[in-house]
Amino acid sequence: MSETKIPYKIYLSENEIPKQWYNLRADMKNKPAPLLNPATGQPLKAEELSGIFCEELVKQELDNDTAYVDIPQEIRDFYKMYRPSPLVRAYCLEKALGTPAKIYYKFEGNNTSGSHKLNSAIAQAYYAKNQGLKGVTTETGAGQWGTALSMACAYLGLDCKVYMVKVSYEQKPFRREVMRTYGAEVTPSPSNTTAIGRKILAENPDTTGSLGCAISEAVEAATSNEGYRYVLGSVLNQVLLHQSVIGLEAKAALDKYGVKPDMIIGCAGGGSNLGGLIAPFMGEKLRGENDYEILAVEPASCPSFTRGKYAYDFCDTGNICPLAKMYTLGSKFIPSANHAGGLRFHGMSTVLSQLYDDGLMKATAVEQSSVFEAAEQFARTEGILPAPESAHAIRAAIDEALKCKETGEEKTILFGLTGTGYFDLVAYQKFNDGEMTDYIPTDEDLAAGFATLPEVPSQG
Amino acid sequence: MSETKIPYKIYLSENEIPKQWYNLRADMKNKPAPLLNPATGQPLKAEELSGIFCEELVKQELDNDTAYVDIPQEIRDFYKMYRPSPLVRAYCLEKALGTPAKIYYKFEGNNTSGSHKLNSAIAQAYYAKNQGLKGVTTETGAGQWGTALSMACAYLGLDCKVYMVKVSYEQKPFRREVMRTYGAEVTPSPSNTTAIGRKILAENPDTTGSLGCAISEAVEAATSNEGYRYVLGSVLNQVLLHQSVIGLEAKAALDKYGVKPDMIIGCAGGGSNLGGLIAPFMGEKLRGENDYEILAVEPASCPSFTRGKYAYDFCDTGNICPLAKMYTLGSKFIPSANHAGGLRFHGMSTVLSQLYDDGLMKATAVEQSSVFEAAEQFARTEGILPAPESAHAIRAAIDEALKCKETGEEKTILFGLTGTGYFDLVAYQKFNDGEMTDYIPTDEDLAAGFATLPEVPSQG
Repeated sequence: MSETKIPYKIYLSENEIPKQWYNLRADMKNKPAPLLNPATGQPLKAEELSGIFCEELVKQELDNDTAYVDIPQEIRDFYKMYRPSPLVRAYCLEKALGTPAKIYYKFEGNNTSGSHKLNSAIAQAYYAKNQGLKGVTTETGAGQWGTALSMACAYLGLDCKVYMVKVSYEQKPFRREVMRTYGAEVTPSPSNTTAIGRKILAENPDTTGSLGCAISEAVEAATSNEGYRYVLGSVLNQVLLHQSVIGLEAKAALDKYGVKPDMIIGCAGGGSNLGGLIAPFMGEKLRGENDYEILAVEPASCPSFTRGKYAYDFCDTGNICPLAKMYTLGSKFIPSANHAGGLRFHGMSTVLSQLYDDGLMKATAVEQSSVFEAAEQFARTEGILPAPESAHAIRAAIDEALKCKETGEEKTILFGLTGTGYFDLVAYQKFNDGEMTDYIPTDEDLAAGFATLPEVPSQG
Repeated sequence: MSETKIPYKIYLSENEIPKQWYNLRADMKNKPAPLLNPATGQPLKAEELSGIFCEELVKQELDNDTAYVDIPQEIRDFYKMYRPSPLVRAYCLEKALGTPAKIYYKFEGNNTSGSHKLNSAIAQAYYAKNQGLKGVTTETGAGQWGTALSMACAYLGLDCKVYMVKVSYEQKPFRREVMRTYGAEVTPSPSNTTAIGRKILAENPDTTGSLGCAISEAVEAATSNEGYRYVLGSVLNQVLLHQSVIGLEAKAALDKYGVKPDMIIGCAGGGSNLGGLIAPFMGEKLRGENDYEILAVEPASCPSFTRGKYAYDFCDTGNICPLAKMYTLGSKFIPSANHAGGLRFHGMSTVLSQLYDDGLMKATAVEQSSVFEAAEQFARTEGILPAPESAHAIRAAIDEALKCKETGEEKTILFGLTGTGYFDLVAYQKFNDGEMTDYIPTDEDLAAGFATLPEVPSQG
């Protein structure tokens, strides 16, 4: 099909919303390592997880074999409110760069929560509702996940308790108000609504909170309230499964025009977006049907893939969660306070960690001032104000397109534009004022993080 | 075609973006009254306007006869970045209301500027660029228009000077930063960059500014800088012309499914959205081809249509602009400070004023606490956080749908969802905290506004 026929935006029709999610694990030769019980060193069983997560999600979490999982009709109906999301040909950016590369991006910020997180939020809320539960609990830092979950729960009439890191609660009042508008109960963490919160407050009344503490409170609230379960927006296998809708739609849209990407780029924090975007492409690669360059982009200030260790570690700072084998900087590693670009998680999805270890994908780390430069250029040419997280992928895509300009290669690049930056304008202001600084952890900083890696009890 | 076949979102394809704007004035039997020179009382001529506005826009402003105006290809290319915008069937809202009514909304918030303003911003910036100008100046209050203009200017490489009411500049730093990210020069008004600004500051150093003052500064900056012109985001005939793209797309999408709306509802401040949404429908009504109920919704705190006078008045508080014949509360009328819902302009588009005076459309005024109730209900069911302005139309649409529930009438309602509320969360917070109050001006308040209506010199 002639190149000029490709529109700016490729929309699928509503009946082309995927009817099944794709479970990448089914095609992996080396399966991701299982979650371990930190006390016993044994793989966690369904019954151990079902007090925290609802049953269907535990099943999805542990299922490494089923390749396609039906998306319930109720979830597809919700998806229709904002999906299919557009696949955009970045004609304006290509022109501004003067590159022969062909750039496409899958835009997931096209809904009020402003990010791809909604794809999994509605799924997790649906299964909770379906199990007859009253509500769900979660934590949120920057607020993308909390907002998405609030929207999903409002739609289903499910209670939603969000523990929001106190410093974010105070400094991001707009995020908080969106969640409240959707009916969520938003509590600054640490709070006196939980035993762990009261303990932390007693020890340190002036603490501004941490994600680790918020997780602890959310898990306690789920397990100590009848009819509640805990939900999480990234890292987990189930989340990658739900997010495969991104890649499935992107591939269907490209297939429509006979376009095969040479390279697929995604930002990587816990891996929810990257894992979803690459899923069907990686599947073809695993099955030997097609080859793709796949690139994870992470912040230089939190470089799990590029400088981390592949080891069992806690998923949370508070060390109350299971152990996961992943590329990690150590659960006590915290990026410098000057880091404004998101993607601050110390570890990485076990699925992506295994794929990376197997050499099936690459990773690169970028500094935040160059990330915001890319964000600005993108906003001015493509019209969309990107989330700082998404701008990591933009940076790498622009760099690749500029390489093509030198070599003359007409590479086809697909990247994930995960969200919008409406709630990140404090960071943009810093950049606009020329006050954004970069931070790269020293080897000593990393060594301190690695020193916190747990000893894993020997299995069986 | 069967009802169930209508998808949640009707998207047109890119080649269905209108190729011409529709000029409602061409089909009006009673043309809108001309703008007058306040000094002479004579209709303004093109040469008097061309020092302020660029030439092509002056032509559009004064042309009451040409029904269809070609949209230049460059503008259509920009439109492709965010248009066609979706026409959404509000299945979820209908279900929540339990109404037999069929509700559709045309969603214009699907771009980074967050509103329909972009449709005219790119047109005005394009004609300025095409005339070889260096840049444009404007004022902004809440910031929707300034953001839209900044985006358009960034795309075209045109300078953009925005005078932002000082209190908004300080209280809406996020809006300011979006504009700066798009490269606009944002100046808090009053400023010492203009003679009028310096004069006002000398008289009152602590003033927090007003829209009237910002308009004065923007007009001065346009006329005193070589290669600049002034642009405006509402009220003007040219703006309604550009905004007709909203109605044309909405009608094309409905026609595709054989749907004819019984009632069309839009919020009304200066009239840019309402005039654009109703254009093709009102055209059919004017030509006797079809009939539609058309309803303007305004805030009870600024009720130009429902309690204003149809008279010649200044368009700006500073009284430096031409006189326009319109429904007005008097150019010195300012809604109470507790009014958070936007739509604060004292007057109304001359086109819509004439149509209203001719009985071709109706108007209603709604109180802001009920507007935010509607906004919340809409967000929770349809997933989109609406701008307070748009929520006026939602309120009226819900009220109409609830009437249908009583009568059993299966009315088809179309309303304009002009934008998103991401930058209005201070107002949402007030509502969430139960602190939102209503204000209805007393007859004395209105009398004080009417007392400021100018005497118009008799026309030649």
